[in-house]
Amino acid sequence: MQVDFNCDMGESFGPYTFGADEALMRCISSANVAGGFHAGDPTTMRKTIALAKENGVAVGVHNGYRDLVGFGRRELNVSPEEIQDELLYQLGALKEFARLYGMEVQHVKPHASLYMAAARDEDLSRAIIEVIQKVDPGLVVYCMQSSATYEVARKMDQPVAVEFFADREYNDDGQIVFTRRVTGEMDPDANAQRVLRALTENKVTTVSGNELEVFPDSVCVHSDTPGAAAIAESIVRKLDEKGIEIRPFGRAGQKIS
Amino acid sequence: MQVDFNCDMGESFGPYTFGADEALMRCISSANVAGGFHAGDPTTMRKTIALAKENGVAVGVHNGYRDLVGFGRRELNVSPEEIQDELLYQLGALKEFARLYGMEVQHVKPHASLYMAAARDEDLSRAIIEVIQKVDPGLVVYCMQSSATYEVARKMDQPVAVEFFADREYNDDGQIVFTRRVTGEMDPDANAQRVLRALTENKVTTVSGNELEVFPDSVCVHSDTPGAAAIAESIVRKLDEKGIEIRPFGRAGQKIS
Amino acid sequence: MQVDFNCDMGESFGPYTFGADEALMRCISSANVAGGFHAGDPTTMRKTIALAKENGVAVGVHNGYRDLVGFGRRELNVSPEEIQDELLYQLGALKEFARLYGMEVQHVKPHASLYMAAARDEDLSRAIIEVIQKVDPGLVVYCMQSSATYEVARKMDQPVAVEFFADREYNDDGQIVFTRRVTGEMDPDANAQRVLRALTENKVTTVSGNELEVFPDSVCVHSDTPGAAAIAESIVRKLDEKGIEIRPFGRAGQKIS
Amino acid sequence: MQVDFNCDMGESFGPYTFGADEALMRCISSANVAGGFHAGDPTTMRKTIALAKENGVAVGVHNGYRDLVGFGRRELNVSPEEIQDELLYQLGALKEFARLYGMEVQHVKPHASLYMAAARDEDLSRAIIEVIQKVDPGLVVYCMQSSATYEVARKMDQPVAVEFFADREYNDDGQIVFTRRVTGEMDPDANAQRVLRALTENKVTTVSGNELEVFPDSVCVHSDTPGAAAIAESIVRKLDEKGIEIRPFGRAGQKIS
Repeated sequence: MQVDFNCDMGESFGPYTFGADEALMRCISSANVAGGFHAGDPTTMRKTIALAKENGVAVGVHNGYRDLVGFGRRELNVSPEEIQDELLYQLGALKEFARLYGMEVQHVKPHASLYMAAARDEDLSRAIIEVIQKVDPGLVVYCMQSSATYEVARKMDQPVAVEFFADREYNDDGQIVFTRRVTGEMDPDANAQRVLRALTENKVTTVSGNELEVFPDSVCVHSDTPGAAAIAESIVRKLDEKGIEIRPFGRAGQKIS
Repeated sequence: MQVDFNCDMGESFGPYTFGADEALMRCISSANVAGGFHAGDPTTMRKTIALAKENGVAVGVHNGYRDLVGFGRRELNVSPEEIQDELLYQLGALKEFARLYGMEVQHVKPHASLYMAAARDEDLSRAIIEVIQKVDPGLVVYCMQSSATYEVARKMDQPVAVEFFADREYNDDGQIVFTRRVTGEMDPDANAQRVLRALTENKVTTVSGNELEVFPDSVCVHSDTPGAAAIAESIVRKLDEKGIEIRPFGRAGQKIS
Repeated sequence: MQVDFNCDMGESFGPYTFGADEALMRCISSANVAGGFHAGDPTTMRKTIALAKENGVAVGVHNGYRDLVGFGRRELNVSPEEIQDELLYQLGALKEFARLYGMEVQHVKPHASLYMAAARDEDLSRAIIEVIQKVDPGLVVYCMQSSATYEVARKMDQPVAVEFFADREYNDDGQIVFTRRVTGEMDPDANAQRVLRALTENKVTTVSGNELEVFPDSVCVHSDTPGAAAIAESIVRKLDEKGIEIRPFGRAGQKIS
Repeated sequence: MQVDFNCDMGESFGPYTFGADEALMRCISSANVAGGFHAGDPTTMRKTIALAKENGVAVGVHNGYRDLVGFGRRELNVSPEEIQDELLYQLGALKEFARLYGMEVQHVKPHASLYMAAARDEDLSRAIIEVIQKVDPGLVVYCMQSSATYEVARKMDQPVAVEFFADREYNDDGQIVFTRRVTGEMDPDANAQRVLRALTENKVTTVSGNELEVFPDSVCVHSDTPGAAAIAESIVRKLDEKGIEIRPFGRAGQKIS
């Protein structure tokens, strides 16, 4: 049994550092590299790719709203066409650095509010996938199980990776609950246990105490979750104990879900 | 006989338009497309590539200092390493849009103060060419005849295109004279005549009245020169009359100078 | 009889010019000066204040979303607290330039999508007015007649100026119709006639052909409306013919509506 | 005996935190508040003012080059006129937040490369002081003892505060030595001892081992020096032991040096 493990990386900006990238990069198999619009800059991007290469980690573009001071966390009413253009811009930039290190870009994961907007909005999801299919159809699109992005990607035959958020809680509809970011304050061991259950029993307990079925292709920890590195390390240990291999999807573009 | 004709394109930003791109694109063979750091944005970049494609014009990245309000015209003390990173970032972005339209990126031309800084600074020129050779050695580097960039590129066997500025005056050392931007106010016909002489007699009269030898591979008009479109059209007519073909270098990467 | 006449000014940015500021400044009595977040920069701000002073025009801060490439036209989910902070920041900047020219700041007018968001959102309108009352309660707040901003300002005893948009159409609820920006393409004379009727008969014909009652304190023309200067000049002539004086509110802070 | 103690504050940006502001604010008497161009944002600015107020600390504007990714550390060739405009813009913004908390702005201190550029350049120093004298002549200008800024300010009768850098080394000409940032790695106690000596004996040992005469009005620690808070606390203890009071200049605008 195997699973991908992804995390947001490369979100430093100029003199500002963000996230425990070095510690996390030793745990994960896929790095979502900030594209420079919500966070990151060219030098940070290059160093993040170099660090990924060093750790055998695959890379994808983490494209967010063009809102540096808001870190892409605030919804911005951008047209699907502009989102396409901003995605290509950031994707191309990342590819050039990947080329410099003899790597290829594996995936696309919209960031924060853009990810949530696409999850709700079929047209936006379609726009994102359409433009990916025009330039590089083998890219894996990361998304939530209960999302327009997932539905549209399946219909369009786009390789997708369904994520399970190790550090977020779910409601009964499979939506992430943002009002209480309880999980992050958790004991890393409980967290890892929850991931293991999602992978082996395909179940997670929701905030209302019910059981939700989940079929994760990739586990996600956010680098800005308090104690992210400890959570990630705990997950790695737990999965290793159970013989579950953490590995990226690679460029085969195989349909995962 | 043939020559390339280049111009700065795609320098609009959001709601702000800049330059007579549509008129100029009908005249030139190579477009220096703003990379988004001194000017331009992803949507403008895509539309500029589309316009270039429509007009059979080759594209290159016009990478400037990260100084939007200053339009890259103010020298900024950036390290050669950061210039490399910013170049790759913008180059990659452009390549992705080129891919979308089935085109390839032909060249690299640093913008404004960065172009002049590289012209003076061997280390900076070397840094730029080194990183190009790592990711895409066939790219043609545009530069001035009297410049460190030219010297370094020759030594490193990098394809270069020596520019002749139709809308700038030269001093006896082959340097552009910025204090008087006289040429732009000229009669377009005189301007075209000057270009023709540079191409056929390899001579230009300097500000002090002497003759300077020039061996241009590419003629350049700046899109922000007053009357740029009229100057470009006049050059096209004049060269056409004399049977000089305007055409880009293409991807062969042949050594031009 | 008298009325204020306002227009967006100072929206140039670095090398990018925007709007026919010089022609418009000769027509209006109040300039909404871009604060630097959706458009404008410090040098543009200073020059705009100088131009206003020269033309006897009062100034106010035009505070927009921090989204330069989107020109503040795209809604951005910013918290009321951050809107307050961004307003104070831009207001203070404008005051310093006003001080340089011996002027005072007269008013506050949120820009574009922020204006519309406040018009719909009581909490946001209250946040804006609360912070104004803390630092400078005499500032006049510009708003639409049918808006939460108007209602909240009245309740909080804040001087307001109800605007009549010369270059926008209204629906029967008094909302601006954005889908068709028909008015801007109009004959300037018809436009001026419409303004005159709004001022003297307090009526405007809506897009559905009905009559809407309007009680304008200030007429607004947007600088990005095609032919804005011709429209403004036509309004000035028409009002002058009818003996209606165009003048700003000044700093008295008198309740207008 | 008394002395001012200043530090760079408010250099966080959006989600990015920078500097141990809370610990440092308990030590200093004057805070140089980032103006938003090299660092800082409106919300950070407001919170910094609130923190200063809480700690009885005076505030001044810390105006840097408009270069967020470079943090104002890279020299940028901006005209003196634009520096004036950017200074007024940031100063006005700070004043508005100061007004919100019932405070006044005490001083102006250019940041990093702009500070060093002014130190070398009489015209730039004159431009800065001229515009200060137009809007608020009582503002204290912080500068180095050996600098054009100091000389020009004295000639123009502008209140100045000569700084002694606790965390930088000096050469025999009284210039700061940037190549080795040795001091920051020092033992805080040695650091405090050095400050005490500068204040009581008016001497500092230069990198070449000679003695340099210094007449500090204000001690400066940089918030980005490793261990800045420990250094600041050590200085506070040492000065307190010797009965030297740490206090700001206030608005009297008294000539200090």
